[in-house]
Amino acid sequence: MSAPVIVVAVGGDSPEQWLPEFASRWPEGRALWLDGADEADVAKADYAVVWAPGPDLLHRLKSVRALFSLGAGVDHMMGSPALPDVPVIRYVGADLTSRMSEWVVMNCLLHLRQFHAYDRAQKAHRWERPHQPGAEELTVGIMGLGVLGLDAAAKLSQVGFRLAGWSRTPKAIPGMACFDGPGGFDAFLSTTDILVSLLPLTPDTAGLVTLDVLKRLRRTGPLGAPVYINGGRGRTQRDADILAALESGVLRGASLDVFETEPLPADSRLWDAPNLFITPHAAAWSPRSDVVRHVVEQIRRHDAGLPFEHVVERARGY
Amino acid sequence: MSAPVIVVAVGGDSPEQWLPEFASRWPEGRALWLDGADEADVAKADYAVVWAPGPDLLHRLKSVRALFSLGAGVDHMMGSPALPDVPVIRYVGADLTSRMSEWVVMNCLLHLRQFHAYDRAQKAHRWERPHQPGAEELTVGIMGLGVLGLDAAAKLSQVGFRLAGWSRTPKAIPGMACFDGPGGFDAFLSTTDILVSLLPLTPDTAGLVTLDVLKRLRRTGPLGAPVYINGGRGRTQRDADILAALESGVLRGASLDVFETEPLPADSRLWDAPNLFITPHAAAWSPRSDVVRHVVEQIRRHDAGLPFEHVVERARGY
Repeated sequence: MSAPVIVVAVGGDSPEQWLPEFASRWPEGRALWLDGADEADVAKADYAVVWAPGPDLLHRLKSVRALFSLGAGVDHMMGSPALPDVPVIRYVGADLTSRMSEWVVMNCLLHLRQFHAYDRAQKAHRWERPHQPGAEELTVGIMGLGVLGLDAAAKLSQVGFRLAGWSRTPKAIPGMACFDGPGGFDAFLSTTDILVSLLPLTPDTAGLVTLDVLKRLRRTGPLGAPVYINGGRGRTQRDADILAALESGVLRGASLDVFETEPLPADSRLWDAPNLFITPHAAAWSPRSDVVRHVVEQIRRHDAGLPFEHVVERARGY
Repeated sequence: MSAPVIVVAVGGDSPEQWLPEFASRWPEGRALWLDGADEADVAKADYAVVWAPGPDLLHRLKSVRALFSLGAGVDHMMGSPALPDVPVIRYVGADLTSRMSEWVVMNCLLHLRQFHAYDRAQKAHRWERPHQPGAEELTVGIMGLGVLGLDAAAKLSQVGFRLAGWSRTPKAIPGMACFDGPGGFDAFLSTTDILVSLLPLTPDTAGLVTLDVLKRLRRTGPLGAPVYINGGRGRTQRDADILAALESGVLRGASLDVFETEPLPADSRLWDAPNLFITPHAAAWSPRSDVVRHVVEQIRRHDAGLPFEHVVERARGY
C-alpha cells in the first residue's frame, strides 16, 4: 500500500508555507502542491486542503475521501455543484478563535469607552471626559454560538458585559440569556445593546442583518443607540443598510471586518461612515502550521476508526 | 449621644450628588456639605470625605476619627503637614476596578492589533493588513499588584496575554512571573513587551518611569519595540521622557491616562505624539453612590469593633 497523498490548493500561498509543515508532521503521508503536480497524482489524491476551489479543481480530485477548508467558513465551496460527496471539514483552531475574541473584545470596549469621542478630544488638545458607561450596564448579544461565539462570550463576560445569545438550535449557556430560531429573534434583538455577529454564511443567514433588524435592537441602553459588530461573513448583512443606519443614528456605531464585496471598493462610502471601525477581513486568521496540525490530526483520527470532527452538515451549509 | 457627623468636602461636586445618598444609606448619621456648614459642626465632625484637602480644611476638622479619600490614590493628601493623626482610608470599589481593567485591556489590545496602522489604512480607503501578532506572543508586565493590578492581570490572562508583575513586596501569583523591589526591576523590565503601570504615587515611585527605564524593556518582541501604558499616577513618570521615547522609537506606542501636570496643557507636544492614546484621567472613576456605600460600610465595621479596611500605611504613603 502506497503512502496517502494530500493536495494543497490554496491560491496566493506558496509551497514553502505548507510542504515542510506536512513533511515534519505527517511522515506517513505525502503532500503535493497543486501547481505543477502530476495529473495522475492529483486524480489519485486521498485528501485536499482547499480555499474557494473552482469546479475544474473539484473535478480533478477524483479520489478524495475528504476535503479540508482552510478556514472556519466553508461558504467559499458549499454552493459548488462540482463538490464531491465526501466529508467537508472546517478548520477550527485555538489561534483562529483567540484572534477573533481579541478583535470582538477590543471592538466592544472601543464602543463602550467612547473611543471616537476621546480620539477627537485628543486631536483637538481638549481635556474632556464624555460619559463612559460601565460594561455591566450593557448587553452584548452574540449571533452564532459555535466555537467562536462561545469563546468571545466567555471573555466578554470576564470583562464585565452582560450577555445574550441567538442560535439556530436551542442552547443553555450559564450566564447568557439564550434565544433561538426565527421565533426568538425579536426578543433577542430587543435585549441587545451591542450586536455581535459571528454567523457563518448559509442560505438561512444570507442578507439577515438589514436596516429593519437594526431598528429592533434595544434603544434605551446607556449608549443612547445600539452598536453592530460583524466578524463573521459580509454577505449576512446589507452593507447599504449598515451605512444608512450609521448615518441616520439608528446605530450609535459599528465595527466591520467583513463586507458584501471584498476587498471593500475604495469608493465605498462605508470607509468614512461615522463611528465605524473597519478592518479588512483581518479579525482572525489561520496560521498554516496550525491548519496542518489540524488536518493531520483529523486524518489520523479517521485512520484509527474515529469519525472526522467539524464536518459540515450539507443540508444547512455549515 | 448625638448622631455621628460626616463632612463632605469634594470640590467640583454638588451636594445633590452626595447628601441624598448618605441620607438613604446612613440614617443613623448626618452628612454635611462643607460649603455653608456651621463652623462648630465642622469642628465636631467625626468623619470627612475629602479630595486634595488644603491645610485650612484639615485644621478645621478638629475632631475627625477617620478621613476617607474619594479615590484609590491618596497622594493628593498624604504629603500635607496638616494631616491629622487618624486613619486615612482609600476608596476601593468594584466599579472603579472594573473601569480600570476595561481601560487596560482595551489599550493592550489596541497596541497588539496595530490599531493606529489599521486606522490610517481606513482613512486612506486602503484594504491592507499590517501584521498583528497574537496575545500569547507578548508579555504584559504590570507594575503594582494591588486590587487594580490583580484584576487587570486576571482579565489580560483570559484574553491570552502572558503576564509578569513587579511589586514592592514579594508576591506569588499563579500564571504570572513575579518580581519585586529594586533588585527585581531589571529582570522584570527585560521580560516585558507591554509595561502597564498601576502604581500609586509614593516617595518610592515618584519619577520612576524615565527614558532609561523604558530602554530596558524587551526589544525583541513581536511588536518590534515595547509599549508603555499608565493608568496609575502621572508623577510616577517623566512626561518629557515618554515623548522622547515615542519620537525616537524607544517605544512602539503608549497609552496615557495620567500626566505630571493635569489637565495636560493644550500646548503639550504629547497630544500629537506618534502612536499615543491619550485619555484625560478618565480610565476609572468612583461613582458617588459606591463611595457612600463604602464609607458607610467602613464606619459600621468600626462601630462594630472591627478595624477599618484599606487604611493607608503612613510610612510608605499608600
